[in-house]
Amino acid sequence: MPVGTAGSVKAVPQDIVESLGAQIILGNTYHLYLRPGHEAIRRMGGLHRFISWPGAMLTDSGGFQVYSLTRLRKVSDEGVQFRSHLDGSSHVFTPEHSMDVQIALGADIAMAFDECTEYPADRDRARESLRLTMAWAQRSLAHFRAHKNEVVWLDELNGRTQRLFGIVQGGVYADLRRESAQRLVEMDFDGYAIGGLSVGEPRHLTLEMIAEVLPQLPADKPRYVMGVGYPDEIEQYARLGVDMMDCVLPTRAARHGLLFTSEGRMNIKNRKYAEDQAPPDPACDCMVCRRYSRAYLRHLIQCGEPLAGTLNSIHNLAYYLEIMRRVRESLETAQ
Amino acid sequence: MPVGTAGSVKAVPQDIVESLGAQIILGNTYHLYLRPGHEAIRRMGGLHRFISWPGAMLTDSGGFQVYSLTRLRKVSDEGVQFRSHLDGSSHVFTPEHSMDVQIALGADIAMAFDECTEYPADRDRARESLRLTMAWAQRSLAHFRAHKNEVVWLDELNGRTQRLFGIVQGGVYADLRRESAQRLVEMDFDGYAIGGLSVGEPRHLTLEMIAEVLPQLPADKPRYVMGVGYPDEIEQYARLGVDMMDCVLPTRAARHGLLFTSEGRMNIKNRKYAEDQAPPDPACDCMVCRRYSRAYLRHLIQCGEPLAGTLNSIHNLAYYLEIMRRVRESLETAQ
Repeated sequence: MPVGTAGSVKAVPQDIVESLGAQIILGNTYHLYLRPGHEAIRRMGGLHRFISWPGAMLTDSGGFQVYSLTRLRKVSDEGVQFRSHLDGSSHVFTPEHSMDVQIALGADIAMAFDECTEYPADRDRARESLRLTMAWAQRSLAHFRAHKNEVVWLDELNGRTQRLFGIVQGGVYADLRRESAQRLVEMDFDGYAIGGLSVGEPRHLTLEMIAEVLPQLPADKPRYVMGVGYPDEIEQYARLGVDMMDCVLPTRAARHGLLFTSEGRMNIKNRKYAEDQAPPDPACDCMVCRRYSRAYLRHLIQCGEPLAGTLNSIHNLAYYLEIMRRVRESLETAQ
Repeated sequence: MPVGTAGSVKAVPQDIVESLGAQIILGNTYHLYLRPGHEAIRRMGGLHRFISWPGAMLTDSGGFQVYSLTRLRKVSDEGVQFRSHLDGSSHVFTPEHSMDVQIALGADIAMAFDECTEYPADRDRARESLRLTMAWAQRSLAHFRAHKNEVVWLDELNGRTQRLFGIVQGGVYADLRRESAQRLVEMDFDGYAIGGLSVGEPRHLTLEMIAEVLPQLPADKPRYVMGVGYPDEIEQYARLGVDMMDCVLPTRAARHGLLFTSEGRMNIKNRKYAEDQAPPDPACDCMVCRRYSRAYLRHLIQCGEPLAGTLNSIHNLAYYLEIMRRVRESLETAQ
């Protein structure tokens, strides 16, 4: 899922995101709550209509962004008090409030409010954090079930409404992860995410946690690993059975000149590309690789041209989506 | 002509500039000379190939940008010594050097090297500046004629090569303007531009100068007013007989949130658009007005999203190009 932080997959127009074959994009509850505000989005018919995206959407719970505001937040059993990174104003997110905001935004998939356990976290800390996440999952689900029919587009879709996913936590402790998954499955969510990974832990632990958790989750419901990853990671996890992933990496790296290609990572700012007229990735058929040279992309980023972010992002998204297309195809063939 | 300063119509991918119906775009010699350098562009096959723009292109002479470096330049009969706005390095542009650079870039149309007379300039200053521009026009033409067959794509087009336009100066003095035009016509350029306008003079003087000069220029060669203007100006000048205009206004204003619409200028940052779900211009059929609301465009610019510049620029360019399409159509009908 390309990440559309504040209602825009950064620097890429919606029609291009569509043409790349993206079926679902992510919106960040924290950012949209601050600007333009979830009530404004509700009044305008929900997030799909507001940003003019007819495909599927998922909103996170706001928990991860709040977790990133390390020095601006205070966690209690009730929820999280935090200060806006924009103006320092004070806000509280509880599981119930996160659900209200996400119902107002009206994405197809909402996420339970969780605490993302930091890395490293010792076993006691990971267990305490998990206790909070499990209690919040239960509260998220209860509030969501009571209010999910309030989504603004309910009538347009003959009563079909949003779905809620639970989030597995547990740090890097396999038994805590398994316990977390089992308890969430008992609560019966519409899908399950594995959170708290890719937060600094070594990659073999990321893989180990995913491999531990996946068998605990029902295969007939979506299984989503949050916030990953590099191209080889997303392929590896998809082949393990992961159905959904999101990451800002393809777009964020693109804006800094890092391209993912069939020949590996390419820092397009490198002087050696100054007169290189080859396409960024000769094996790629995207609209950028069909039209522009490495030399031109290098020139754009050297000059600070806004087109640099756009073209680099389009290529990286095309590269990621093509990986997933190939994986899907090979899994279908294998069946 | 949309302006593609450093080889990019800022924030808009080439395929979209094409789809808007732009037949020709402008590149700035000063910027391209500094980055990536005209020799690099020549080695890569010229500017069209470098930026992947198959349509027509025009390069300015570098004179106007150098003129803008008020405190960094020194003018003599020989040419202009200036310091780069990027790194303070020292450079000299002469008419001959400007031609060499423009031949290396290889746009379809090159411009004679001129001195843009500032406003206000008294009559003596305007006459002295005109003397320089006329001498430089002669030297530009002589050097261009001697070297125009050195353009890198000459063989691909069966010996067709670039064209050179002269530039009328003369400040706001009608007789100097007429004299300038007549002397340039005697030199026999491929087309003629009226420069040194839209540099701070009141608009009635801009119009007066254009109206004075146009009858002096052959109607069967392109007549180009440089650096204008607002939507009503370009329509007015086109109806007077002006064939070509360029301006950064539609794209620069767009990046600051100023949209041109059939209902007038719209500052999309205005709070009153926060929940306005109408298209930016209900009378416009561009890809932005067909898909996005005022509220969404306002949100993007409020959040500093790079997509704001892209979408606003696309609309403004579509609006400008549609004006010119309508003018052309009504002139054809009138004939």
